[in-house]
Amino acid sequence: MLRPRFDASGLITCVTSDATNGDVLMVAHMNAEALQKTVESGEAWYFSRSRKALWRKGETSGHVQRVVEIRIDCDQDAVWLRVEQTGGAACHTGRRSCFYRAVSKREGGGAGLNFVAAERVFDPDAVYGKHGPSHD
Amino acid sequence: MLRPRFDASGLITCVTSDATNGDVLMVAHMNAEALQKTVESGEAWYFSRSRKALWRKGETSGHVQRVVEIRIDCDQDAVWLRVEQTGGAACHTGRRSCFYRAVSKREGGGAGLNFVAAERVFDPDAVYGKHGPSHD
Repeated sequence: MLRPRFDASGLITCVTSDATNGDVLMVAHMNAEALQKTVESGEAWYFSRSRKALWRKGETSGHVQRVVEIRIDCDQDAVWLRVEQTGGAACHTGRRSCFYRAVSKREGGGAGLNFVAAERVFDPDAVYGKHGPSHD
Repeated sequence: MLRPRFDASGLITCVTSDATNGDVLMVAHMNAEALQKTVESGEAWYFSRSRKALWRKGETSGHVQRVVEIRIDCDQDAVWLRVEQTGGAACHTGRRSCFYRAVSKREGGGAGLNFVAAERVFDPDAVYGKHGPSHD
């Protein structure tokens, strides 16, 4: 049987995209238990490397991710979740996607990052409080 | 200025999706040079962890990835490339996407992986030879 290949820390990379339009919402990690819970519950669970804890996406904000499909890649070290993002925001900054900034060539050479002012779906201070989670 | 956050090995995770339909094609890594070359050339460059070398996607197969957009996530440790996949196949197994297998609940419980027989776009033996690259 094929099995996920967890790394030395017991984690696998997970890419989560919006099943309706294919936009990548976030990249996070799963341990075996998070993957198992995701498969069984049909909602996205991750493992927070900073908090060293299982993490049910949307636990605090209510913006849970309903799983439409789970895929695994050729060398089995990455998982792709296609989800329905409830509440409209995957990012703890209140934006739809964590990938809200574009990278482009800087004039005069060098890799510069342009800050794209994507609109927030919610106000993180109001949802989490001022010292809210770095992720949800 | 915002900067990518490379990990202790000098790498950042990169998710690459098909700009035409949002399908995730692959997950790979970039070092600073690969990101710089990607930004400057408009074609995807990665860093192979197994070969410990810069890697121009499609170097051998000709299936290069033309960059449509580069995004970076909230904590700047992951990059999302939206690309035009020339030749139709991103995966070294000859498939369009590396994520050609679905994961689903196994009957009777436990996380089982179902093998989805996605069609190959090319024959890897013919393109790379029998001992071809594990990635291209």
